[in-house]
Amino acid sequence: MSEAVRIGLLGRGTVGGAFADLLAERAGAVEAATGRRPELAGALTRSEGDFGEILGRSDLVVELIGGTDPAREYVLDALRAGKPVVTANKQLLAQHGEELFAVAREAGVQLRFEAAVAGVIPIVRTIQESFGVTEIDKVFGIVNGTTNFILSEMASTGAAYEEVLARAQQLGYAEADPSDDVNGADAAAKMAILARLAFHTPVALDEVVREGIEAIQPDDIAYAKEFGLSLKLLGVAERRDGGISVRVFPCFLYGGHPLSPVEGPFNAVMVEAPAITEVTMSGPGAGGVETASAVLGDVVSILAGESPVHDTREVLPVVSDVSSSFYLHLEVADEPGVLASIARLLGENEISVKSVLQRGIGDDARLVMVVHECLESRFATALEGIAELDELRSSPRAIRVIEEEFV
Amino acid sequence: MSEAVRIGLLGRGTVGGAFADLLAERAGAVEAATGRRPELAGALTRSEGDFGEILGRSDLVVELIGGTDPAREYVLDALRAGKPVVTANKQLLAQHGEELFAVAREAGVQLRFEAAVAGVIPIVRTIQESFGVTEIDKVFGIVNGTTNFILSEMASTGAAYEEVLARAQQLGYAEADPSDDVNGADAAAKMAILARLAFHTPVALDEVVREGIEAIQPDDIAYAKEFGLSLKLLGVAERRDGGISVRVFPCFLYGGHPLSPVEGPFNAVMVEAPAITEVTMSGPGAGGVETASAVLGDVVSILAGESPVHDTREVLPVVSDVSSSFYLHLEVADEPGVLASIARLLGENEISVKSVLQRGIGDDARLVMVVHECLESRFATALEGIAELDELRSSPRAIRVIEEEFV
Repeated sequence: MSEAVRIGLLGRGTVGGAFADLLAERAGAVEAATGRRPELAGALTRSEGDFGEILGRSDLVVELIGGTDPAREYVLDALRAGKPVVTANKQLLAQHGEELFAVAREAGVQLRFEAAVAGVIPIVRTIQESFGVTEIDKVFGIVNGTTNFILSEMASTGAAYEEVLARAQQLGYAEADPSDDVNGADAAAKMAILARLAFHTPVALDEVVREGIEAIQPDDIAYAKEFGLSLKLLGVAERRDGGISVRVFPCFLYGGHPLSPVEGPFNAVMVEAPAITEVTMSGPGAGGVETASAVLGDVVSILAGESPVHDTREVLPVVSDVSSSFYLHLEVADEPGVLASIARLLGENEISVKSVLQRGIGDDARLVMVVHECLESRFATALEGIAELDELRSSPRAIRVIEEEFV
Repeated sequence: MSEAVRIGLLGRGTVGGAFADLLAERAGAVEAATGRRPELAGALTRSEGDFGEILGRSDLVVELIGGTDPAREYVLDALRAGKPVVTANKQLLAQHGEELFAVAREAGVQLRFEAAVAGVIPIVRTIQESFGVTEIDKVFGIVNGTTNFILSEMASTGAAYEEVLARAQQLGYAEADPSDDVNGADAAAKMAILARLAFHTPVALDEVVREGIEAIQPDDIAYAKEFGLSLKLLGVAERRDGGISVRVFPCFLYGGHPLSPVEGPFNAVMVEAPAITEVTMSGPGAGGVETASAVLGDVVSILAGESPVHDTREVLPVVSDVSSSFYLHLEVADEPGVLASIARLLGENEISVKSVLQRGIGDDARLVMVVHECLESRFATALEGIAELDELRSSPRAIRVIEEEFV
């Protein structure tokens, strides 16, 4: 059995609990990827556990308490004790990042915080590692899922801010006290962190200019729609006039902008630089298991050390006959009974039709349809039968379809 | 001065040349980020340089020759000599990945290949590191920019495949011999690599089922549009029936699918797993400097070792007065001369109007407009003046706009 690595967990709320579960579930995969078997050394909650004792028993500390006090002291103590730390705490990073980075550097240990910004989207790693020496012009995007949900709902229903906020609270997309989300403070902390990483410049939280969404009127959203605009709460960190500007504000975007289709409680971040043009990343902004997943990714990076391991932990068979949905184009003789013959062949192979169009007349008649997902071998059998029909004027043409429809 | 790290460059074509330039340009940033100053130890081209000699002089090897022979031998030699390797060579990885991974593991050195798949999108790092222990269900997307450009053009112009291909060749989006792009072979190599990483299962290139876009008819694209569908060449690697399926095929997507707005020579990849829901990443699929940028990111990861460094290499001032475009909503008295007064105040502050709407009559009259980018302090001055006009029935409402319009 490989050497165990003992993880001290600080905080066992929604994210902490999800992390403990995920760690247990993926322990085998962690061992395969890193050569080390993870185990929980102890968990500190408001009512249970002693920090000093848990720290003493741990090789690595995961901080999921939130807030700056006592999280700051705990993280500093862990780093000074030479133990790497993973945290999801955006306020801690935004307010005390420089102090933490300095102590981590001095102690020669890692401090990772992917989960602090944009949930499961690996934007911290991407900026720090993939684009670590890229001269970034701009990092911007939707970094607060609550406000994006509210603005999406206001746009689709025409309802007022207060009404939509109440619905978001019912659905669990907004907290009982939503102030930090709706006034832009949460997004400002995330943008301070991203600006620090992108521009290698310390950014104090009060240097982030911010405006929230509390004053947004539904009729502004409706009028702006006539110009082709949709509303998002954006965080923007960019080079401007020889310096950098870091801001959070509600902002209209024209249709076709990569951020304009991002709806609901999703986050999306764009990075622009001459050497990369632009890269856009989107995904769920929060959620217990998604945040826990980002934390686990950081833990694995620390355990793996510098090099990704190419293990063959699960060698799976490669299968070839799978299910697909298909588009089908048939040039047919304009005669009664053609559709019936085709429908019979599809039916015999358990293939059902989702949509159908009939176009043209006489020599130009054709049937175009989309069929629901079916085993590809069955579809091939049906297609062979159809190709042999006397009513077909040319070979059938089939193209796969991803059936998932979005609003 | 810090210790130099000598980089041996194999190949100096489009990507190799761009990499040499980018390395020179960003040498200072590399040194700040990693503590090591990079320098070119030599470059091997078809006509110049000796591989053994360059290898002897190098601490790290960057392979940008392409193809499998002699690239495979060179990379194996470098790894066996204990020198880390960065490559952009998808065929090499897809055909000889297992051998290379085994040799790298044995030698205890890194082999990195971000640039081999999806250009500057950090999908290799994301799957290997961020989601390294995530139980991934599916990795899929648009991994060939040439075919995506061709399909986008066919859809927007209605032109035939051959005609659009010729235009793509003129524009440099397709090579003189485009076979490997249009028949799906290029995408198949990339999907074999992604499937290997996502499912920890070796995938041979001939296990990837593939179909190209050569037979696509413009009228199929047109008919499918009536169902709300758009066409992409997709690569799909997913768990199916207890195994995995890895395929490349043209496929219709419904509007609203995260991949459906990806147009032109762009790439986009989605990863789905229960613990992350879904993450989508998009960006330019190729291009010399973009590919070189992905190579440099890998080089920096090797030099930095395990830990991202939080250096303050450029401490920039935080500026607050920046330029923005604005949406402006004004409830006005329905009197002649209102628009003139407003236009005068905007004009005095050098603000020009992009679009304007007049809505309602009498007590419900309002002006809604978008103004072009202007310094925010000037806009604030204009807004103060407008707010004082007698004709205003309520406070003006202003919301920022990103002016960039897309088709």
